[in-house]
Amino acid sequence: MKAAVITIGDEILIGQIVDTNSSYISKALDKIGIATYEMLSISDNKEHILKTFKDVQNNFDVVIITGGLGPTKDDITKKTFCDYFDDVLVQNDEVLQNVKDIIEGFYKKPITQLNIDQALVPSKAKVLFNKVGTAPGMLMEHESTVFISLPGVPYEMKYLVDNEIIPYLVEKFERPYIVHKTLMTYGRGESLIAEQIENWETNLPNFIKLAYLPSPGKVRLRLTARGENEDFLKEAIFNEVEKLKPIIGDIIVGYEEDETIEVVLGKLFAEKKVTLSTAESCTGGKISQLITAVAGASAYFYGGITAYSNQIKTDVLKVNSDLIDEFSVVSAAVAKEMALNCKSIFKTDYAIATTGNAGPTKGESDAELGTVFIAIATPNEVFVEEFNFGQPREKVVYRAVNTAFEMLYKEISKN
Amino acid sequence: MKAAVITIGDEILIGQIVDTNSSYISKALDKIGIATYEMLSISDNKEHILKTFKDVQNNFDVVIITGGLGPTKDDITKKTFCDYFDDVLVQNDEVLQNVKDIIEGFYKKPITQLNIDQALVPSKAKVLFNKVGTAPGMLMEHESTVFISLPGVPYEMKYLVDNEIIPYLVEKFERPYIVHKTLMTYGRGESLIAEQIENWETNLPNFIKLAYLPSPGKVRLRLTARGENEDFLKEAIFNEVEKLKPIIGDIIVGYEEDETIEVVLGKLFAEKKVTLSTAESCTGGKISQLITAVAGASAYFYGGITAYSNQIKTDVLKVNSDLIDEFSVVSAAVAKEMALNCKSIFKTDYAIATTGNAGPTKGESDAELGTVFIAIATPNEVFVEEFNFGQPREKVVYRAVNTAFEMLYKEISKN
Repeated sequence: MKAAVITIGDEILIGQIVDTNSSYISKALDKIGIATYEMLSISDNKEHILKTFKDVQNNFDVVIITGGLGPTKDDITKKTFCDYFDDVLVQNDEVLQNVKDIIEGFYKKPITQLNIDQALVPSKAKVLFNKVGTAPGMLMEHESTVFISLPGVPYEMKYLVDNEIIPYLVEKFERPYIVHKTLMTYGRGESLIAEQIENWETNLPNFIKLAYLPSPGKVRLRLTARGENEDFLKEAIFNEVEKLKPIIGDIIVGYEEDETIEVVLGKLFAEKKVTLSTAESCTGGKISQLITAVAGASAYFYGGITAYSNQIKTDVLKVNSDLIDEFSVVSAAVAKEMALNCKSIFKTDYAIATTGNAGPTKGESDAELGTVFIAIATPNEVFVEEFNFGQPREKVVYRAVNTAFEMLYKEISKN
Repeated sequence: MKAAVITIGDEILIGQIVDTNSSYISKALDKIGIATYEMLSISDNKEHILKTFKDVQNNFDVVIITGGLGPTKDDITKKTFCDYFDDVLVQNDEVLQNVKDIIEGFYKKPITQLNIDQALVPSKAKVLFNKVGTAPGMLMEHESTVFISLPGVPYEMKYLVDNEIIPYLVEKFERPYIVHKTLMTYGRGESLIAEQIENWETNLPNFIKLAYLPSPGKVRLRLTARGENEDFLKEAIFNEVEKLKPIIGDIIVGYEEDETIEVVLGKLFAEKKVTLSTAESCTGGKISQLITAVAGASAYFYGGITAYSNQIKTDVLKVNSDLIDEFSVVSAAVAKEMALNCKSIFKTDYAIATTGNAGPTKGESDAELGTVFIAIATPNEVFVEEFNFGQPREKVVYRAVNTAFEMLYKEISKN
């Protein structure tokens, strides 16, 4: 079972938008045992699309295409799809009704000819009804390849993948099993981990593959097993993880696939029935935003203050202005005071505070660019660490947020 | 001038991470007039990499590859690169010194054999020094194609693209000009815009291409001109934009390439010397985070409060608890009070407040899933609007944030 995922659109090729659709699709395919062998982004150009269709024809079992199905002139996928299969466009009444319901019913706007044209579909295609948008998906079985064309708007694509494509593929194909396990590690480099687990890695059975996924301050280790017997694969992965624990158990923070540290922290806070608040300066609300992106966060996260100016630090967070004058706003003393006051204002058990100089220029402090102080207030104490995360600005914020989560994780998992 | 961008790594093909490197690279190439014709993601598999290299050989002028250059066993790009060019790996002393400086000097860790091996490079390649990481880039001119291999860690890739690749390409190739202009529009659908500007679009000169980039609540219109004379292209684009203004000028909020509404708002706030604060419930700090992601935001953004629980709304934001009891926490009355109190706590000219039910389950309110109230406090008044953004959670937050910015933009650009 081999799949290819193709995105069509110049906006991707000129770097104006990042393609997130391919990732969503390949992950959904992976879960049902279909491996994506290639992802390809090509332009809104008829010849280019036709050439690509020819290249993938009979070399892949499934080809999923997104983009170019909108109502405007630059959207040429449907027409080209039709040409490739030597088909004609016909009006589909059910699709037309859906278009009318959305445009006239939900948006309360007059329907236009361009909207009506969205109900034209290739006569031989299986139509995939898109209840959340006006462009339908299309599916065509041709020789030994299934071609599926989906709109590029992410939530429309997701709706069709979840509700139409996956059920269709599960029904149509016999598939092997793919089992993944991802271990999240924090605070040790890729090379050092690799040396520590070298012996274990060399002895992995040949149907299990290991990948290192490093990002600043953390490394994910992903084990992938492929085969016909799901229980056997799961047990084999379980055994390998057990062997790994005595070697690097101290740096592993999570065992769920794609479990982020915010999710792990959320579970720990909920389990221990303790609460959290945030006081952010240089991270600008990013910590709060990541915590609240986890459904159910309201059980343990009471809220946060983004204190972007000195005045807010003194007025709202009640930081003593003498401290700022004496130590500067980017200092251990101010970070500690921010965490303590935040904990008391929000009446939480824990609080995180950040103050730093993210750059590109110096602000209300003379601290070196990239300097960040992170403080954690716990039920019994407050502690602070100083870091320099270099430049650019986005990296400083990214590393500060991750490091704050890491510090909080270490602290809360102690008790 | 045709380029291909290739990413190597199973983590992309199984959908574990989204490829952002290709977008960065193609944007940088586009700026110097090199068009990316194809983006491709393939697996960490020797045969697959070799086949891909053969496919692109002599069909592209430049091929940029990222990923697979790390120190661990799953990193096979360097070895395969070497095989393809029939070359051997030799130690590069300058790279070795850089690896030592980073591992021993910066990270204060013992150097390992895996680290030392990172200084091995193909003997015929031009080495691209990576000052921000341990894996060097490599460049090989072969027949009519230049192959460039870069590490996959985004900031290392960016460093090499900016400091090595772009200067090399500018020097080596004569390139045409590509001029883009992106107009950001808010609050009108793609089809309706297309109908309004149909006549204008039909009359565009043939060297200018128009693309529609829709996302919930906004549509970007991108004009692209290609040719030999940069001034001529710029003038042609300018003239077309001028013709467009009388037709849809009312919905255009920005004219800079990739200018987001946060950037536009930032400029307006700075220009008018007015200030802003935020009180966020269902958006969880996302508004604050986007505002502070703009460098220089401290000039107009004083800070924000993420009030995730009822208690914080009453204790910290001083919302009258009778209001919550009478109207529920997800209500126009509470949103207005949040905005007004936020403005007064932070002593700003404007404040944004959000309260809603993002889902997936109902929280401290009985409001329908997807309901969001957004209030804006201005120097003279406060106003509020009610929305239903449906589901899922991420879409509700995304649309609430965008709509809040749109409301604020309309308000501030009035005066």
